[in-house]
Amino acid sequence: MLGQMQDYELRVTHLLDHAAREHGSREIVTRWADGSESRTSWAGVAHDSRRLAQALERLGLRPGDRVGTLAMNHAHHLVAWYGTMGMGGVAHTINPRLFDDQLAYIANHAGDRVLLYDKAFQPIVDRLKAQWTTIEHYVVMDGDGPDSLRALIDVEDGDYAWHEGSERDACLMCYTSGTTGNPKGVLYSHRSTVIHAITELQPAEFDLSAQAVALPVVPMFHAVGWGLPFAMAAVGGKFVFSAVNDAKVLCALMNREKVTHSAGVPTVWFAMFQHMDETGEEPRHLKIVTIGGSAAPRAMVERIMRMGVRVNHAWGMTETSPIGTMGAPSWDWDELSFEQQVDQVVKQGRAPFGVELRVVDDEGALLPRDGVSSGRLQIRGPWIVKRYYGSDEDALTADGWFDTGDVAVIHPDNVMQITDRAKDVIKSGGEWISSVDLENAAVGCPGVAEAAAIGVFHPKWDERPILLVVRKPGSAVTAEEVQAHLAKHVAKWWLPDEIHFVDDLPHTATGKLLKTAIREQYKDFRLAAA
Amino acid sequence: MLGQMQDYELRVTHLLDHAAREHGSREIVTRWADGSESRTSWAGVAHDSRRLAQALERLGLRPGDRVGTLAMNHAHHLVAWYGTMGMGGVAHTINPRLFDDQLAYIANHAGDRVLLYDKAFQPIVDRLKAQWTTIEHYVVMDGDGPDSLRALIDVEDGDYAWHEGSERDACLMCYTSGTTGNPKGVLYSHRSTVIHAITELQPAEFDLSAQAVALPVVPMFHAVGWGLPFAMAAVGGKFVFSAVNDAKVLCALMNREKVTHSAGVPTVWFAMFQHMDETGEEPRHLKIVTIGGSAAPRAMVERIMRMGVRVNHAWGMTETSPIGTMGAPSWDWDELSFEQQVDQVVKQGRAPFGVELRVVDDEGALLPRDGVSSGRLQIRGPWIVKRYYGSDEDALTADGWFDTGDVAVIHPDNVMQITDRAKDVIKSGGEWISSVDLENAAVGCPGVAEAAAIGVFHPKWDERPILLVVRKPGSAVTAEEVQAHLAKHVAKWWLPDEIHFVDDLPHTATGKLLKTAIREQYKDFRLAAA
Repeated sequence: MLGQMQDYELRVTHLLDHAAREHGSREIVTRWADGSESRTSWAGVAHDSRRLAQALERLGLRPGDRVGTLAMNHAHHLVAWYGTMGMGGVAHTINPRLFDDQLAYIANHAGDRVLLYDKAFQPIVDRLKAQWTTIEHYVVMDGDGPDSLRALIDVEDGDYAWHEGSERDACLMCYTSGTTGNPKGVLYSHRSTVIHAITELQPAEFDLSAQAVALPVVPMFHAVGWGLPFAMAAVGGKFVFSAVNDAKVLCALMNREKVTHSAGVPTVWFAMFQHMDETGEEPRHLKIVTIGGSAAPRAMVERIMRMGVRVNHAWGMTETSPIGTMGAPSWDWDELSFEQQVDQVVKQGRAPFGVELRVVDDEGALLPRDGVSSGRLQIRGPWIVKRYYGSDEDALTADGWFDTGDVAVIHPDNVMQITDRAKDVIKSGGEWISSVDLENAAVGCPGVAEAAAIGVFHPKWDERPILLVVRKPGSAVTAEEVQAHLAKHVAKWWLPDEIHFVDDLPHTATGKLLKTAIREQYKDFRLAAA
Repeated sequence: MLGQMQDYELRVTHLLDHAAREHGSREIVTRWADGSESRTSWAGVAHDSRRLAQALERLGLRPGDRVGTLAMNHAHHLVAWYGTMGMGGVAHTINPRLFDDQLAYIANHAGDRVLLYDKAFQPIVDRLKAQWTTIEHYVVMDGDGPDSLRALIDVEDGDYAWHEGSERDACLMCYTSGTTGNPKGVLYSHRSTVIHAITELQPAEFDLSAQAVALPVVPMFHAVGWGLPFAMAAVGGKFVFSAVNDAKVLCALMNREKVTHSAGVPTVWFAMFQHMDETGEEPRHLKIVTIGGSAAPRAMVERIMRMGVRVNHAWGMTETSPIGTMGAPSWDWDELSFEQQVDQVVKQGRAPFGVELRVVDDEGALLPRDGVSSGRLQIRGPWIVKRYYGSDEDALTADGWFDTGDVAVIHPDNVMQITDRAKDVIKSGGEWISSVDLENAAVGCPGVAEAAAIGVFHPKWDERPILLVVRKPGSAVTAEEVQAHLAKHVAKWWLPDEIHFVDDLPHTATGKLLKTAIREQYKDFRLAAA
């Protein structure tokens, strides 16, 4: 027997309509890359999004077509998303920090027909235009030149009814480059995005209402900007965007606009602390800071909590929309000492309703939630990836779980804690660096016998790679020569901060590098620069 | 192009599984009708619900079958819901305050195969058993006799996998008796219920997390207990139930169990104030009180706010699951004076993401959101009724909106305010009384020429009916005779508090009673008992 409630497709356009209708005058503030500022509102974003939808149709785009964005956070990036999704298209966020091979691959693989980009990334566009085979139209997001978004939409009237369709339709895609091999595209549906957005509002997650003033430092090209562009529309909160992530600029914006919510990787807070120490300034209106992308160090958690600000320690990834867990206060929070509260917050928190976690051993057997049994962290739920774009098979275990590549324990109170990574990657400023790719590039250098890349603590970037090199017998290859070789094969920011020459490296019984032993050996290592 | 996220049916069993898995030890406290108390947990409720599902299958129930409940709030009522829904059945909450004709009609119309009831309602069962044609099994909810829920489930082991099915399946039904004619059944789906539950968590709604300790005074048979049995499972909060709604008992429970959230009709708070005034006691841990069912008087809002407690002034109905609007703090809340804050809270608030409101005139033309244009309030969204159970036509306007029967304005800040009722009903203690039914019964009394029933202010029940009677020429019919006549036709609690004899009543041009004029005339009237 079927229920008899109204039909309603969970489309992301409903989110924007809600914000424009119920909170239409709530501001969207942008501090642009050139230092200029502009202010619009949810009503303004909705109007511009309708005009962009009209313009995209004028360019010949059809529902399902992909529109790439290569841009920082600003009001026009929000318009790019909603305008594209509103005409039934798929907004595709491209991470401008990837290296050229990946950038070329991603836009071609997605089949982007239009690219909306920031002037700051003109050099990328100039370098790759010849390699991008599907992009027909290039539009500059900022400014008001003839190729600008402003020029594109200003000829439209905004008298447009959103494309209607199934909630199962794709609305957004984002490629993940966390592993070796080509980047893989995650294709979010309207349904998954809306359910995720409503979930994020609750007090144990982002704790969002119309009173919220959010400045997301996490870029919109990073795992859907952690969902904030949708969740904030669901409540009609005020958005403050900055196209540059300089701590001085951010701190001033936060204070002037009375920002209550911010979100970013640990690196952002290292920089903010430095600014605070140098100037004595600090963000004065913050209530909640969400930290994710990589584990927040205890000292960071403590310092932010001592400012009277709640720290949401989150875990997730592109494949999980991205909320997997968040470290909300426990039932007995008010009875805990400050130290005990910090003990809780340094873990990654609980799963919200919707997602389910499990930890399994290498044979796939379920491990107990005992705080000790460490294993592969797997996840399932309505906003978790099923299959990568263009793949002909699901990215799931035989029984339907997504293996995250993280290694974790679940404590008896159901709080999850990441303990290691199954994938051999280094996370620098929230971005993945593949150890294996670095090692493979290094051993291609004449004179290098073997190389091991590991991440070591860095006060600004959280982790940076160092490379341990075993020279070939008789070789006198130098660090400079290895660096010069690597520079030809990987992005500049992937280059190891230090290269150490060693006599040998530990191996497993089957001859693989024993990375756990190497990481253990270097766990207290501090970079000279630090 | 379809998104590629995981398949996941939004079934209410996921809510219970989440609570049992992530917050399994969180308590569910019951204070039973006989004064005894018991404590279970979300894990306990989940185990009992699985056992009830097994037992219902043992009785021969199949997915889609209806299981009636005639019960107050307690842990077993929660088990009755989840057990029924978990085996694919439809839990049907029956309001024990309805009169016998309605009670007979409702269970038969729903086709309930099992009735789970409180001992306190044994007289109802005894009276109606012969008229209930579809109920095969009667189970007592409280106690542990041979006919009890406890006896029914104790022979089962709980090794049960929930029935799986579409999220569009029905899971719950509730009849509404707000208008003349037979009660109408609203048939909620798993999908509508889950979306509504997640929506309720956000700070601008019930503001629920695992830290919440909720004592819902609103009965579970009233508009889905305002969704709390689902929303609380979504966060694993602690539930405190009382099967009796005595202010002294409630206040003691609230203080001992540190209740942070409560919800109920205004009548509940009138009684609590009286208790506070008499004893000097007050609930000391409350953070948020949700008031709905009928408009909360300004003095009530003020008094609760002065206790340092947030008042959520809500509007909704059985047909809206029930959240339509809630009065959350506005952006500029912190800059308002106390009086200005109260001004806001006495209105009914804004629509959350999901539902959409409009006000139309009698011809269906859209009225502006100007705070002045009063008209019929209509609503649409994923948790709003489409069609009543058993009806062969949708209960919607031609363009898909549900007409609520309320008359409202929407202010320029999008806050909704109920100004009148299109349907001629009286709301006593949160329950509907039909003026037209009362009037029709009255004019059946010998000696009565015409009668008008209106609601007047009552300090405990918010509104109570009084009846204005025009005698037939030469008649000397007395108030006692009219009351005795009415008692044969309507529920005892529908009987007017006073009967006034008048010479004539005002009429419209077409000869109908001009109720607005009569209500205006009596707006300052106070019942002698008050």
